[in-house]
Amino acid sequence: MGLIVQKFGGTSVANTERLFHVADIVTRTYDQGNNVVVVVSAQGDTTDDLIAKAAEVNPHPSKREMDTLLSTGELISSSLLAMAIEGKGYPVVSLSGRQAGFYTNSNHGNARIHKIFDERLKKELDKRNIVVVAGFQGLNKYDDITTLGRGGSDTSAVALAATLHADLCQIYTDVDGVYTADPRIVKNAKKLDEITYDEMLELASLGAQVLHNRSVEMAKKYNVKMEVLSSLEDKPGTKVKEVVKMEKMLIKGVARDNNVCRVSVIGLPDKPGIAFRIFALMAKKNINVDIILQSIGRENTKDISFTCPCEQMDTALEVLNGELESLGAEKVEVNDNVSKVSIVGAGMQSNPGVAATMFEALFDAGINIQMISTSEIKISVLIDRKDSERAMNVIHDAFEV
Amino acid sequence: MGLIVQKFGGTSVANTERLFHVADIVTRTYDQGNNVVVVVSAQGDTTDDLIAKAAEVNPHPSKREMDTLLSTGELISSSLLAMAIEGKGYPVVSLSGRQAGFYTNSNHGNARIHKIFDERLKKELDKRNIVVVAGFQGLNKYDDITTLGRGGSDTSAVALAATLHADLCQIYTDVDGVYTADPRIVKNAKKLDEITYDEMLELASLGAQVLHNRSVEMAKKYNVKMEVLSSLEDKPGTKVKEVVKMEKMLIKGVARDNNVCRVSVIGLPDKPGIAFRIFALMAKKNINVDIILQSIGRENTKDISFTCPCEQMDTALEVLNGELESLGAEKVEVNDNVSKVSIVGAGMQSNPGVAATMFEALFDAGINIQMISTSEIKISVLIDRKDSERAMNVIHDAFEV
Repeated sequence: MGLIVQKFGGTSVANTERLFHVADIVTRTYDQGNNVVVVVSAQGDTTDDLIAKAAEVNPHPSKREMDTLLSTGELISSSLLAMAIEGKGYPVVSLSGRQAGFYTNSNHGNARIHKIFDERLKKELDKRNIVVVAGFQGLNKYDDITTLGRGGSDTSAVALAATLHADLCQIYTDVDGVYTADPRIVKNAKKLDEITYDEMLELASLGAQVLHNRSVEMAKKYNVKMEVLSSLEDKPGTKVKEVVKMEKMLIKGVARDNNVCRVSVIGLPDKPGIAFRIFALMAKKNINVDIILQSIGRENTKDISFTCPCEQMDTALEVLNGELESLGAEKVEVNDNVSKVSIVGAGMQSNPGVAATMFEALFDAGINIQMISTSEIKISVLIDRKDSERAMNVIHDAFEV
Repeated sequence: MGLIVQKFGGTSVANTERLFHVADIVTRTYDQGNNVVVVVSAQGDTTDDLIAKAAEVNPHPSKREMDTLLSTGELISSSLLAMAIEGKGYPVVSLSGRQAGFYTNSNHGNARIHKIFDERLKKELDKRNIVVVAGFQGLNKYDDITTLGRGGSDTSAVALAATLHADLCQIYTDVDGVYTADPRIVKNAKKLDEITYDEMLELASLGAQVLHNRSVEMAKKYNVKMEVLSSLEDKPGTKVKEVVKMEKMLIKGVARDNNVCRVSVIGLPDKPGIAFRIFALMAKKNINVDIILQSIGRENTKDISFTCPCEQMDTALEVLNGELESLGAEKVEVNDNVSKVSIVGAGMQSNPGVAATMFEALFDAGINIQMISTSEIKISVLIDRKDSERAMNVIHDAFEV
């Protein structure tokens, strides 16, 4: 007999019909002899509706009150799912985050899980109850409700799987797995059977929206086997784990991130310490600098360019313009019409030809590379946004993933 | 500095505009130098909507899951009201029933309050916070959410007032006080300035729907001064307390209850023990027998009639028909076209003329009295339902209340 944690997102529990379908999946897993712990998000648009209600009453509510309000969404979906499972004649109990033992820090709206006190969970599982847990929420040391922020329910599920030493943590969603590229953009995108934690982390942080980084990081840390699969179709999904079968595929995926812009400081004096000063200014404003390029400018000057998220561009521009004179720079230019396209794969570490293949594919397609950044398992390039979908396709084709 | 508990019903917090208005009432009380504890019901139709959602998923959900689901209604309204109060710049915190320390028995759907652990409440009040408590809910010894059933939020408010030794427990509702009769029926109905607990209890159990019996019983037991007043109009309401000013008014109110029907067992043998057998049968089926009348029938037989709530009439009829032979009765008749009209007033105890005045008024109006029941502070008569509104008016006039 195994223990399986199954997480269902907001779309999967959006209405009565979907709830019945989820109840079918859960009870089938239970019938196979497993203990089952289910984690649910709030139904469909519930969270957005609650946020809108709050905004009407107070445009700047305290995060503490907001957390109490938002936590009701998962209480509703978890008790409704428990009722649906009861209706099928199975033993079941719903638990709030607090009842399931989630203790967090006090960072309302984006709390971190300190510990899960699993006495109640174990007691319910010993009774052979299916346990439905309200995701996304916990309790802090002041006995106040907290929420876990973006990707919170995924994190709840992985944390439960780690604490209970579950055999598998299944993340049911509205796509049927992790793809080599967004299938809406790359026609030939293939579903992966397996992917490593590190590859999944790179893909997630590079724009693939299937899993949130935080849950994958936790899964890697506690060695929780994950599976991403569809709540709508009955077929295997993608397994996320430490080591995967050796395959011919050099790369696991092509990702695109449009939330990126380029900031260039032009005509800097060619003196030591200039780059340091620029990035110290950015760090002070919490600007998330990603790719950096230093190049030779005209007449013994140099240019320094970097990328940051679009919403931080204006702040970066303002700070740098205020320091133009002290930096001795000529001007600052920004460009928010760019995309970052990346390839990810543990296989590329030992394959020096990977970068060449990628750049050649882009060259053949006449796509200009503005900046390059590499890590052990990924290569990112900054290109014109208008070229980004074509870039994904030609790269995908070049690697025959 | 006093401590005031203010309870607002579902209509009073139904939308943003109403929430702002409630925030005004609360902060005005706070500005007058009082500590304020607020108890709220769920907004408008929230509870009904949640019940409908549950019914769609499972027509017979467990009461435990139902309680978790329903408790979210008050969590939402309490956090929204706290946000509205924050928006006005006042220090405030919302607490769930559990956080406010409500510990109950495990009778899900109709739980009784065992105790309120008031540490958190006192800590928040010491910080001079306005405390908004989610009414209607608590926690049982298994760490599960319970709800208090009908009139639950009123009961939450009175229990808080008793525990915290509040100076006053104000029940804000959509009427401006307790009236001598339903103003929609009796044009001359007057608002009472004061009423005793006992009178209020009789009025409530006789069909006046302003306060639920349970909260008044608790207020009487712990000597909590209550006031019923309107959340819409800014004027004094009706005070409910142990002793009220002596007044000329003999009676405090005229009430009508339409949820009553008459069951008659005709042609019973005139033997001892027959009445006992009938009411033992009724008790076994939990039928709530109210007024009883035994009368002489034809040819040495007797008839026994009694009243019960309408929804129990069919069960009573079925049970009695099944025992016709063993009782030796001729037949059973039922009549659900009756009303119970009652007068209530502590003054009538020492005034033998009260009953006569009431019966005379009915006689003069040509209204036939089918059954009579009296207690120390009330007299009830059963009459044809079609006469009931006229009866209320002529009785009201006769006493010049």
